[in-house]
Amino acid sequence: SQPLKVAAIPGDGIGKEVMPEGLRVVRAAAKRFNIDIQFEPIDWASCDYYEKTGQMMPDDWKDQLSPMDAVFFGAVGWPAKVPDHISLWGSLLKFRREFDQYINLRPVRLFDGVPCPLAGRKAGDIDYLVVRENTEGEYTNLGGIMYAGTDREIVIQESVYSRFGADRVLKYAFELANARNRKHLTVATKSNGIAISMPWWDGRADAVGRDYPAVTVDKQHIDILSARFVLQPGRFDVVVASNLFGDILSDLGPATTGTIGLAPSANLNPERKFPSLFEPVHGSAPDIYGQGIANPIAMIWSGALMLDFLGHRDAHDAILQAIETVLKQGPHTPDLGGQATTEALGRAIEQLV
Amino acid sequence: SQPLKVAAIPGDGIGKEVMPEGLRVVRAAAKRFNIDIQFEPIDWASCDYYEKTGQMMPDDWKDQLSPMDAVFFGAVGWPAKVPDHISLWGSLLKFRREFDQYINLRPVRLFDGVPCPLAGRKAGDIDYLVVRENTEGEYTNLGGIMYAGTDREIVIQESVYSRFGADRVLKYAFELANARNRKHLTVATKSNGIAISMPWWDGRADAVGRDYPAVTVDKQHIDILSARFVLQPGRFDVVVASNLFGDILSDLGPATTGTIGLAPSANLNPERKFPSLFEPVHGSAPDIYGQGIANPIAMIWSGALMLDFLGHRDAHDAILQAIETVLKQGPHTPDLGGQATTEALGRAIEQLV
Ligand SMILES: CC(C)[C@H](C(=O)O)[C@@H](O)C(=O)O
Ligand SMILES: CC(C)[C@H](C(=O)O)[C@@H](O)C(=O)O
Repeated sequence: SQPLKVAAIPGDGIGKEVMPEGLRVVRAAAKRFNIDIQFEPIDWASCDYYEKTGQMMPDDWKDQLSPMDAVFFGAVGWPAKVPDHISLWGSLLKFRREFDQYINLRPVRLFDGVPCPLAGRKAGDIDYLVVRENTEGEYTNLGGIMYAGTDREIVIQESVYSRFGADRVLKYAFELANARNRKHLTVATKSNGIAISMPWWDGRADAVGRDYPAVTVDKQHIDILSARFVLQPGRFDVVVASNLFGDILSDLGPATTGTIGLAPSANLNPERKFPSLFEPVHGSAPDIYGQGIANPIAMIWSGALMLDFLGHRDAHDAILQAIETVLKQGPHTPDLGGQATTEALGRAIEQLV
Repeated sequence: SQPLKVAAIPGDGIGKEVMPEGLRVVRAAAKRFNIDIQFEPIDWASCDYYEKTGQMMPDDWKDQLSPMDAVFFGAVGWPAKVPDHISLWGSLLKFRREFDQYINLRPVRLFDGVPCPLAGRKAGDIDYLVVRENTEGEYTNLGGIMYAGTDREIVIQESVYSRFGADRVLKYAFELANARNRKHLTVATKSNGIAISMPWWDGRADAVGRDYPAVTVDKQHIDILSARFVLQPGRFDVVVASNLFGDILSDLGPATTGTIGLAPSANLNPERKFPSLFEPVHGSAPDIYGQGIANPIAMIWSGALMLDFLGHRDAHDAILQAIETVLKQGPHTPDLGGQATTEALGRAIEQLV
């Protein structure tokens, strides 16, 4: 069979430090499980590239990436050099839209060895998946400003949803919930305040849910849902949300498990018509870049999600197991109270895969 | 001087149980501090009234309430009888808009005696105010559905902001921060994803902030801001947010201090052109209604905020002190692990005022 082709884009800051460790571990797993995988290193989609060329990516970026099976991505952004709206909308958000990566999947999990900010919770108590709509909804540049620059300024910001867009992410989430033991799906909403889109979204959840009678559905307004991420995290199994609500929940969830620096993220085009993208939730962290102390686990875990998506669940599970062991026993980088380097952690996980 | 006139609206469910305790304590504080205050009991703005009349409030509700100095409100909603969008938009959200209660103020505080869901935090570690814009922004019924009922459905939801509306809430928050010791203001945003309204909102924060050079401003995207409510709650002093973001943060904040059942809320028209409204953050709790075990502290604390707003800071402080003592020593209602009734808690706080 054809080798898998993956673009490796380190991006900015610690993206460049964690990428080699991600590659190291994915290669080790590929070797162990006999997966033929080829990486293509790419230096664009970075602020360095922007400084040289005045754009985040070459004009033919889509042609270059389209033949790939996946994009393995470090982190993008360097606000001191390039404003976020240029670096992010010029790369990540472009990939999500133009490669129709309509699912943003983020696992939330509490591990032994990671101090939990919540009192009295232990590994196993928190283990759920946030499924975020990744291409439409609240993230738009539609609308405008009237009487701009005067005291009478009025601003309209439009959110845009489609049945096509809502149904496919809901369907994905129902499928996921249906395949899990608990078969429990939380649907984030705010239909008591946002009066057009959210009641409609609730209706789409009802409609799609009709095909999944075994799944228990729990609709929750985003305010109380956020509160319950803190108060009753064991309640959740799969959580599906619009673009904005999913963005909030997928930072809040990892915060409650102390894993905001460890959390991975999969931006999926499930049909594999376009490459999917796998990246840490953390950013480029200019403040610690250059010291070789960034924790590479989010990058490595993202690599595990990538192998899973490409059909290799066994390789995913082996990497997760190795991550669990290292979190429990060390070595640990400074964010976890240790003194190990980025590379030492990568090598320790590689050994265990 | 004229007596203060306050409408007392219990509303639904446990609103009817906590209201008498709120009145009891406010009356005790009024007596102690020589405040002339008259309460007018009102039975509408409730689902019972809706069942009798087919509307949440009488046609002349505005005429009846306009002469009041304040509205003291229990809780509204009884989904089994009346859909939320009717009960809420027909009462609370109407008050907010038609009485131009453009500030929603919610204190977040950790108390001795209240188990904190966050590990290792003690009273004093968490103490901040969420200032939410309460009349515009994301809460609208503007927009619509195209190709409704077909596979091609497209939904537009509009958020609407005005310079007038943003500047006044930002100014209120800057004034508040400026009057406090730390003089620290967090501005919630999402300008890296929501491309029209949020960059504009950031700009208004900069513009208004120019008049408050002593205040330190910290702009945070709502995703990481939510995470930091969990990870670094000591970081916050005053937090200002749009309607939706403020809604989320003012449930999440109390969740992190274990006070979601205790938290009060002030819906303010600071100019006192219209009456302001004071209510618990909690709802009508159909599941525990009728047992006399609801915790009345949110109602009582809301009464304290009301007295403060009406010019009686000393009365506010005395009530808060009494709440602190009861939280530390008991008696406690079942939500706090005790066996006391709603009334017993009210009486205990009354004694201490
Ligand atoms: C009931 C609901 C419409 C309301 C809101 O979202 O404003 C409530 O959550 C609140 O915070 O007062
Ligand atoms: C950087 C930003 C635009 C992005 C988002 O909000 O989607 C990030 O927070 C994320 O969650 O991937």
